[in-house]
Amino acid sequence: MPVVGMVGGGQLARMTAAAAVGLGTTFRVLTEADSESAALVTRDVAIGSHLSLPDLSGFAGGCDVITFDHEHVPTGHLVALESAGVLVRPGPGALHYTQDKLSMRSRLISLGAPVPRFAVVSAADDIAEFARGSWPVVLKAISGGYDGKGVWVCNSPSEAWEVLATAAARGVALMAEELVPFRRELAALVARSPSGQGAAYPVVQTVQADGICREVIAPAPGLNAELAIEAAELALRVAASLGVVGLLAVELFETSRGLLVNELAMRPHNSGHWTIEGARTSQFEQHLRAVLDLPLGSPALARGGGFTVMANVLGGTDPDIYDRYIHVMAADPGVKVHFYGKEVRLGRKIGHVTVVGAPGDDVASLRDRARRAASYLRWGTEDGD
Amino acid sequence: MPVVGMVGGGQLARMTAAAAVGLGTTFRVLTEADSESAALVTRDVAIGSHLSLPDLSGFAGGCDVITFDHEHVPTGHLVALESAGVLVRPGPGALHYTQDKLSMRSRLISLGAPVPRFAVVSAADDIAEFARGSWPVVLKAISGGYDGKGVWVCNSPSEAWEVLATAAARGVALMAEELVPFRRELAALVARSPSGQGAAYPVVQTVQADGICREVIAPAPGLNAELAIEAAELALRVAASLGVVGLLAVELFETSRGLLVNELAMRPHNSGHWTIEGARTSQFEQHLRAVLDLPLGSPALARGGGFTVMANVLGGTDPDIYDRYIHVMAADPGVKVHFYGKEVRLGRKIGHVTVVGAPGDDVASLRDRARRAASYLRWGTEDGD
Repeated sequence: MPVVGMVGGGQLARMTAAAAVGLGTTFRVLTEADSESAALVTRDVAIGSHLSLPDLSGFAGGCDVITFDHEHVPTGHLVALESAGVLVRPGPGALHYTQDKLSMRSRLISLGAPVPRFAVVSAADDIAEFARGSWPVVLKAISGGYDGKGVWVCNSPSEAWEVLATAAARGVALMAEELVPFRRELAALVARSPSGQGAAYPVVQTVQADGICREVIAPAPGLNAELAIEAAELALRVAASLGVVGLLAVELFETSRGLLVNELAMRPHNSGHWTIEGARTSQFEQHLRAVLDLPLGSPALARGGGFTVMANVLGGTDPDIYDRYIHVMAADPGVKVHFYGKEVRLGRKIGHVTVVGAPGDDVASLRDRARRAASYLRWGTEDGD
Repeated sequence: MPVVGMVGGGQLARMTAAAAVGLGTTFRVLTEADSESAALVTRDVAIGSHLSLPDLSGFAGGCDVITFDHEHVPTGHLVALESAGVLVRPGPGALHYTQDKLSMRSRLISLGAPVPRFAVVSAADDIAEFARGSWPVVLKAISGGYDGKGVWVCNSPSEAWEVLATAAARGVALMAEELVPFRRELAALVARSPSGQGAAYPVVQTVQADGICREVIAPAPGLNAELAIEAAELALRVAASLGVVGLLAVELFETSRGLLVNELAMRPHNSGHWTIEGARTSQFEQHLRAVLDLPLGSPALARGGGFTVMANVLGGTDPDIYDRYIHVMAADPGVKVHFYGKEVRLGRKIGHVTVVGAPGDDVASLRDRARRAASYLRWGTEDGD
């Protein structure tokens, strides 16, 4: 069986490690520290930096194929690895679109994919011209960001000038984007294998707060069938055109004028955690199958119908969650709790919960159950009953 | 989160390791070699023997609770560990019944559980008296066995005398048992937590050949509802009476005179592999929950109805199964293949396949799909289409 190496040791790699157990493939991770989420559950852990080409090369030497739990490996390093004969999946030709929002937007336009209105901005005048007096305006770092952020929603010219000035000082180029008046956010998750096989999961609704995914409902309730097909086809087309191998998550806005593409990710994605229980093949297994060029698994709903709700568990103020964990399990045996082995820090994603409904189950009550469990695990103040 | 240690590094420990990932608990294994099935996927591997008290003590020192993937740890060692304050789950008081078939049978009788007719035999006359001219007769080692076997179906007095003589020479005590004319074999799998909570999985049908489990159908097709309840209640009663913590699998014969108990196992069991996809909570997660005294998960069918079929994959003559693996996945994306990371050896359990049907799906076609995949993986000679 081939050896798969994943660069990055976060929860995505952790859940991929669990999926590798069933497939019988050997799984390795390259992480910065022994204590990272995936390192805790993986036999073969290499300690190193994803920014160091020697670390990456050394790691790749022990693997048949390498893949990623994040998109922060410099494109130049990936090109160098490929030149040295390493199987990099997805390859740099695809991955660089996730690292450069401007080329991603341009490429999407050339593919006929609808995107929000945007413009490169390098001076206050550019932003004023883009805004035309209509605020808020979204500023995005074209690549990377600063202070751990890459997106700023600016409510006024003065806010925008401040972001612009700081970005300029840090050498970060910006683009402006309309704040899309969306009805809701959706995500289309697909897998593509090197031989070109594609598989599309049901399109989901995502609920974000403060830039963090809080909740995912699969499939997106009441989604117009034509829009669902459009979203899945769009994602499959983007995956094929960009040469993606593995998973591609397309984050979308549903608006009164149709769908707009917000972001792309080429790895297991938070919007796909529901697939562990809710789909026939989890996104983690699917990603491994794709990068190994194994036939893809069925992305159909595990129960053949019904909704699955996933809610992220964020760290609260109490580092000791074990008692609350027990209460949540006892209160609702139908809630599946996943913990990532991470230290609890305020606002940090430390786990998620999933509730799989039966066909015909009311989506509102499934959401209530998932939210109640997630919020109880976070704060320890709400009632867990 | 507590640390769970499992003694034994086989596929049961391997699949328990995968279940531990989601629970967020730290999982360790004690194995004889680094290359064992569970060692390949577990971060914390201790190398040592389950027959060595120092090895067991050292291992237990790094764990909050220890449990088992087999029943071969000497009872005396378990008692010593408990005396030293180690949390042993299930404890020696329960586990010794799996090591001593005579006390198990006696205890089952005292609980009013129906068992096959049996007698201790130490001489040819004992066997003759037990058989009363009616052959075959089953001889079983009361504890352990020899040459890797513990059960012999003897078709004639001369066969029985030979087993008896060899057993005597090896110091193995025997009991005789009637060869039960069963309609089919069933298994009732339950979990019990230290606080006394119990959970019963649907009763399944098992199909054995040459003493090896080949196929499991969940739930047992067409099983009389009263018998299903009787089997589950029996298993819960035995678990409570024997003080089992963790899983208890009760292997049963369904006969014209009702149910008879064949064997007990106190660990994840081959008859429960179907639960990974087919039940809300896999047996591996359930075992961990029980030994950690977490509330038990729902043992209900994942799809709320329908059948799940599991078939074991035995090693064939060709050690390289990867090509066949790809063909099986491509031929039937609805078949889930699990490999244990074991070297292929003729007749060895190297994996299993699971097919989860929808409510209303024909059980015969599900069995065909599972069998076809398993036999193709084994031999590489059948057609995988």
